[in-house]
Amino acid sequence: MKPYSFVDGSEPGAQGVRDLALRALELRGGAKSERFPDQRLIGVFLNPSLRTRTSLECAVYDLGMHPILLSPGADAWKMEHRPGVVMDGDCPEHLADAIPVLAEYGDVLAVRAFAGLRDAEEDRSDPVLAAFLKYSPIPVINLESALWHPLQGLADAATWVSHLGEDLRGTPITLTWAPHPKALPAAVPNQVALTAALMGANLTIAHPEGFDLDPLILNRCANVATENGGSVRVVHDQREGIRGARVVVAKSWSGFSGYGRRDEEAEHRARLGDWTVTASQMKMSENAGFMHCLPVRRNVVVADEVIDGPNSWTTETAGLRRWTAMALLERMLAARGENPWNA
Amino acid sequence: MKPYSFVDGSEPGAQGVRDLALRALELRGGAKSERFPDQRLIGVFLNPSLRTRTSLECAVYDLGMHPILLSPGADAWKMEHRPGVVMDGDCPEHLADAIPVLAEYGDVLAVRAFAGLRDAEEDRSDPVLAAFLKYSPIPVINLESALWHPLQGLADAATWVSHLGEDLRGTPITLTWAPHPKALPAAVPNQVALTAALMGANLTIAHPEGFDLDPLILNRCANVATENGGSVRVVHDQREGIRGARVVVAKSWSGFSGYGRRDEEAEHRARLGDWTVTASQMKMSENAGFMHCLPVRRNVVVADEVIDGPNSWTTETAGLRRWTAMALLERMLAARGENPWNA
Amino acid sequence: MKPYSFVDGSEPGAQGVRDLALRALELRGGAKSERFPDQRLIGVFLNPSLRTRTSLECAVYDLGMHPILLSPGADAWKMEHRPGVVMDGDCPEHLADAIPVLAEYGDVLAVRAFAGLRDAEEDRSDPVLAAFLKYSPIPVINLESALWHPLQGLADAATWVSHLGEDLRGTPITLTWAPHPKALPAAVPNQVALTAALMGANLTIAHPEGFDLDPLILNRCANVATENGGSVRVVHDQREGIRGARVVVAKSWSGFSGYGRRDEEAEHRARLGDWTVTASQMKMSENAGFMHCLPVRRNVVVADEVIDGPNSWTTETAGLRRWTAMALLERMLAARGENPWNA
Repeated sequence: MKPYSFVDGSEPGAQGVRDLALRALELRGGAKSERFPDQRLIGVFLNPSLRTRTSLECAVYDLGMHPILLSPGADAWKMEHRPGVVMDGDCPEHLADAIPVLAEYGDVLAVRAFAGLRDAEEDRSDPVLAAFLKYSPIPVINLESALWHPLQGLADAATWVSHLGEDLRGTPITLTWAPHPKALPAAVPNQVALTAALMGANLTIAHPEGFDLDPLILNRCANVATENGGSVRVVHDQREGIRGARVVVAKSWSGFSGYGRRDEEAEHRARLGDWTVTASQMKMSENAGFMHCLPVRRNVVVADEVIDGPNSWTTETAGLRRWTAMALLERMLAARGENPWNA
Repeated sequence: MKPYSFVDGSEPGAQGVRDLALRALELRGGAKSERFPDQRLIGVFLNPSLRTRTSLECAVYDLGMHPILLSPGADAWKMEHRPGVVMDGDCPEHLADAIPVLAEYGDVLAVRAFAGLRDAEEDRSDPVLAAFLKYSPIPVINLESALWHPLQGLADAATWVSHLGEDLRGTPITLTWAPHPKALPAAVPNQVALTAALMGANLTIAHPEGFDLDPLILNRCANVATENGGSVRVVHDQREGIRGARVVVAKSWSGFSGYGRRDEEAEHRARLGDWTVTASQMKMSENAGFMHCLPVRRNVVVADEVIDGPNSWTTETAGLRRWTAMALLERMLAARGENPWNA
Repeated sequence: MKPYSFVDGSEPGAQGVRDLALRALELRGGAKSERFPDQRLIGVFLNPSLRTRTSLECAVYDLGMHPILLSPGADAWKMEHRPGVVMDGDCPEHLADAIPVLAEYGDVLAVRAFAGLRDAEEDRSDPVLAAFLKYSPIPVINLESALWHPLQGLADAATWVSHLGEDLRGTPITLTWAPHPKALPAAVPNQVALTAALMGANLTIAHPEGFDLDPLILNRCANVATENGGSVRVVHDQREGIRGARVVVAKSWSGFSGYGRRDEEAEHRARLGDWTVTASQMKMSENAGFMHCLPVRRNVVVADEVIDGPNSWTTETAGLRRWTAMALLERMLAARGENPWNA
């Protein structure tokens, strides 16, 4: 039997995500949780982390558990994921060997492995995360993979519920692309789209031509939105996208069609400075809350006046990372190997 | 209301520092302390650390708390501190965003951020530490900044009290510059000076011409010394400086007037090998204890015969780092948000 | 009085190693252990680690202790070990200073410091580990040094006992050299040889000409084997070496006589691809279990068909790292400063 993992954040279902968001808000308010002494979470960070690592460690301690967290470089090295390969290259170890061993040492595994941004099909297969799911006999939590960042999605959902109420059907939420000096993965925008779709929101994605998300993922999100009473649309004009929104989520990402021509994309990106989210753009919205997953490049992605303004929810969302991670772990551990999403 | 932080070690006042030193010696002797379960210290190391990190983690565990410690590179990246800057350069994140988030995850923040040694006015503003003080709603402990190393100062004070008694007024203590292959920040010598001044010692600072400390800091230390019954003088002859001392603290540092001409200083430094502290120099003292904050370059800063001799207090001081950190945290946490220095 | 350390795994004696192996199997089966609250292990990793670090942290938590683990680079820098040296080079700190301080902060020290593979006599002296033993007033556990990897040895022994019973005298065990793109230290093969010798096994070491182990170590292992009813032989034909074996342990290593001519050895190694352990070689054995300490280069050191086959014990051995580390720490701490091997 495969363990119950948390991969793209849709596993609990729409009601389950709402329940976790509500539970996170309860925990933030001081609610007590069950404690799981001597249970251990092993987190493997193949990329750097500040908030995810710290909020997770926090949640683990708050549940009476022990964290074992491996940092990139010193504790966790480059891992091979391709089956059958002759390993005479860079990688000293195969995930086929590392993962079952780590599973012997703990009760929950968690892994961060970003997109490589070199090969579209490889990133689409989310290879490192897929290897964890394939080889692990214990539950796996995705700490941001090539495609998804579901703990961020839970914190986003909890922020929305906190400000806009539990029933988010039809709520106008805008995800807008923003400038950035570097090409970045699409895990966060993918996750915003899927979480908004699960909540039944009316999601608008605004991005310049050429900065498209993966059409397979967009299509899935549109279907999920429809099932939950919402919708997804894409526009290429930022002001049009923000008009009427109750929430504006900003993020930079690299276009799905830009794989293999990053130089061209970089030149294009350099001419898109007017996509920085400023007060002027935010005025198009219905007094929307401003969100960004952090870290954020100030005055590139978003102007100080917005992120420091009264409608900025960024610190609150980041703070909720602690409580949503705790709500998730509490649910997963309390299930004791059974399906945690049926509770 | 601003939280009560520990920045340059003067916050508890002269009597408060003595009390913490005495408490540290009690704890070393086996005294029990209150425990603070589920309280969390978050330590952000933007520079490497051996003793500070380890002794702090030790103190945190001894108080029943949980540590979350972020290491440079993997867990804690280069942070912007300048307000209003367009962040299109090296730094992916601004302290204005990171600090309030970390404060959501813990009860005390601690940060290490060394001097850059490039720009005197920037270092003088202690910019990263200042940002923590500006943006944190919870208490901040300085784990060595551009200007100060107050946990080292507490351990120095506890060492002096242990060997020379509680009343250090008028005690001749010498801080001597020493050779080193690299230019180094002045946080440690600044701290020795301020701590000695608080204790009312008669401090002599011996350094070669050109290796001056910041005159603003020296002036402050002279005033603090006077208030507490002590004095500060500067000499440029090491033997004269050590004559009659009960304590010799060695440390290399880069001259305050040397900002902007490091190459010239390096040539100068290379000709100052006779400032290595040897048994011959120590004979000028009154059977003084030898101190260094560690790590130390043996036979460059100090000869083996001195640091391995019976009057070397280096291991003892480093050991006291554990107990002084514990005494400090105990005091801060027991105050529960009130002024911990009025107890 | 010197503390009781765990350096090459022979310290408990043959019966003691068997007892620890049996205890590890009990602990794996759910046996309870004494708990040692507020006892602290300080682990200094001067080289990267995945399994050793994680299994050790696991054992520490399972015993109710606290881990303080320093990672290479950020937390633990390059340390000088040579007495009397003028430290004007790379190393900012001498182990003579660092070790006594770390000992003030914990109850057990542990250290990982690999062979440099540049100077045979230096590696033979196991300089960093030797410095820990020289300067530490508290017990030291070797987490893999230039010469030994005794926690791996304990897990190997527990695996053998688990599959072949407690009395391993005369059991045919083969250690075979295997190809690898890089020159590697001999700590693991040395350890396999010493552990097999302690258990009284009949050990065959198969390696190509030129890939000899240190003759001093081989000689010691032969003597230990004889004392315990076993034997050690060396062959240069892999199939001959594997014939009749009940266990095949694979590992690559660099030849002891290869110090100072690594380029020549690399060319030699490149022609030895037929030493990869495949099903064909394993057929020569008596249905042997296959072992490797991990990380392993698949299809270079060993074919997928072997490591993924029903006789592969690699994951089990790695899983036992947790329980053998726990058994060892339990024994050492329960002795409370007395000789833990006389219990």
